[in-house]
Formats: sequence, C-alpha cells, structure tokens
Amino acid sequence: MRVLGVDPGLTRCGIGVVEGVAGRPLTMAGVGVIRTPADAEVPERLVLIERGMEEWLDTHRPEAVAVERVFSQHNVRTVMGTAQASAVAMLCAARRGLPVALHTPSEVKAAVTGSGRAEKAQVGAMVARVLRLAGPPKPADAADALALAVCHIWRGPAKNRLQEAVAAQQAVSAHRSQRRKGTVR
Amino acid sequence: MRVLGVDPGLTRCGIGVVEGVAGRPLTMAGVGVIRTPADAEVPERLVLIERGMEEWLDTHRPEAVAVERVFSQHNVRTVMGTAQASAVAMLCAARRGLPVALHTPSEVKAAVTGSGRAEKAQVGAMVARVLRLAGPPKPADAADALALAVCHIWRGPAKNRLQEAVAAQQAVSAHRSQRRKGTVR
Repeated sequence: MRVLGVDPGLTRCGIGVVEGVAGRPLTMAGVGVIRTPADAEVPERLVLIERGMEEWLDTHRPEAVAVERVFSQHNVRTVMGTAQASAVAMLCAARRGLPVALHTPSEVKAAVTGSGRAEKAQVGAMVARVLRLAGPPKPADAADALALAVCHIWRGPAKNRLQEAVAAQQAVSAHRSQRRKGTVR
Repeated sequence: MRVLGVDPGLTRCGIGVVEGVAGRPLTMAGVGVIRTPADAEVPERLVLIERGMEEWLDTHRPEAVAVERVFSQHNVRTVMGTAQASAVAMLCAARRGLPVALHTPSEVKAAVTGSGRAEKAQVGAMVARVLRLAGPPKPADAADALALAVCHIWRGPAKNRLQEAVAAQQAVSAHRSQRRKGTVR
C-alpha cells in the first residue's frame, strides 16, 4: 500500500510518501515540502498548494491520502490557514477518487512513538528508525507528513471516529493474534 | 462590473451574482445555493463545492469574487467547515486569475444596512430593496451572498485591510498628481 501523508500548512505543507503494509518494514518513497510565499494572498497560496499536491499525486500515485485533522484550539490565524491548506489537499485527493483519512496529531504521535504527547524530535527520530533513514527528515513538517503516512498504514484505512474505534479494536486484536503467532513482537 | 459573492459553508454555500457600479442601480444576475449532503465525508463535500463553483463561474463569468472572511470565534466545528468551503471557493476563483476579495460579516452588514450589527432579516430586506427584488432571497445564505457582492461593488475591489490602506494612499497620491496635471477634478 502506498500512502501520501500531508501535514497541512499555508507556509509549509509537509508531504511524505510511504509504502508497505502493517507488520512488515515500511519504505519511504518520497518526502518534501510544498512552500508558498508568506507575503502572497491566501487564494494565490491555495493555488500553489493545489499545483504542488497535483505534482506529488501524479509522481507517486498513492492509493490513499492521510491528512492531519485540524483543530481550532490553537492560534486562530494559523488554524484558519491550516484548515484551508488541508481543504485543498483533501480536494485534490478526493476528486481523483482516492480515499482520504484524517488522523489527529496525538493519534499520529501515539502510533509512531507510543505516546500521544511525544515531542517533535521524538516523532522525527521514530520516523527515521521505522523508515530506516540516516536521520530525522527535515523540516519537521516533512517528518510529520511521513509519520502520518506510517500512522495510516499501521492504523488501517479507517476514515472517521466510528470506523477508527472499530479499527483500533481490530488492530489490537490482530496484534495480539500476531503476537501469539510470533509474527510481531 | 460583475461580482460573484460566496457565503461559504459545507452544507449550504450561498452564491449571488450582482452586476453594476457604485452609484448606479445594481442588478441581480443570479442567485442560488450549492448544497452538499451532511452525511457525506468532508473531502467529498469539497469536491461537490468545487463542481458547483465551477458551474457558477462558467455560467456567469464574473470579473471578481467576494468571499465572506471566516473568523474562528464561533462554533469550532462549523468554523472549520466554513474555512474549508471558503478555501475551495477562493481556489476556484484564483486559479482562473480572478481577483478574490474577503469581506467580514460586519463589513457586509454595514455596507448594505448601515449597521455592522444588523440582523439577517434586515440584510435580506436591504438586498431586496437594492436589487429591486420582490422579496428577500431565500435561504439566508443566498441573501448573504448577494449582500457580499453588493458590498464588494460599493466598497471597491480592495482585497484586505493592508492593501486597502496602501491602495487608498496610492489613490490619494495618484489623484493629487493627476489633479496637478489637470486630468481629473
């Protein structure tokens, strides 16, 4: 399975492509950042993000796109930009008929590090370890995008809270059953 | 000047097209609502909004698009959806090279009714009066979209506070210089 993760942002939109299946070593297929000038108007910046997304989707042909779920609890201005950038990412994926999954930052951290409160550096370190990279990908947005893709593969293609809850339960059971079979630690 | 106003929303995206110039009677060229099913996934809803926007832009060929500026002060869930819908509206306009202007709800109310705190009904009534309609357009989202377009024509094509200030300054300088040359009064 090839998943394109998106850490949305107007200034830096992290992109990470990961290939593999849960329970086997994963491979990084690509990583980067779509940047837009901070002094440009928002509509123009959204056009640049769309263009960047299209290029990534054309190049890597993922089977699914995982986007960070945006919350409104932080800085208001940043959140609006993040929501707008994520809308463009979701739109680009959905109009190609690709399934889009949303994962919260804490779900991603928990999936990759074991703790939903892990710090950026820890996420970067685990992404490097899981994908067997020489070091944590830079900038952090790129590492976060890879973490999203890894999280998506490990969590399965659940799309919403209800599905996620069911999937999480199934993942635990599967993991336990695999542990019994000795296929995972 | 033909302006397409957008009152963004995931469930109902109000659209209103107004033609005319400030100081002369304005005409309604079109009004409607892009609806998306509340039970659909957000990415899918954004695709439907994009499709609707494209149809409106194709049909009416506006010279400018005015979108309601979204604030994060209200209900978190609603605001995220509104921000995402507005992102799609801005994207559709900007990638056609159309200028996109953002106006706050209170700017729109003030432009149309004289009060930034006017109620929905008052906005609807004034929209009907200004555009010489038999009654206030329904639903309120459609009336608000028309109000945005009217506001845009009356306020001029300034795009944001900063640009407005800069543009005003430049206009004053240009006007003074033209006055010196005797090309304008």
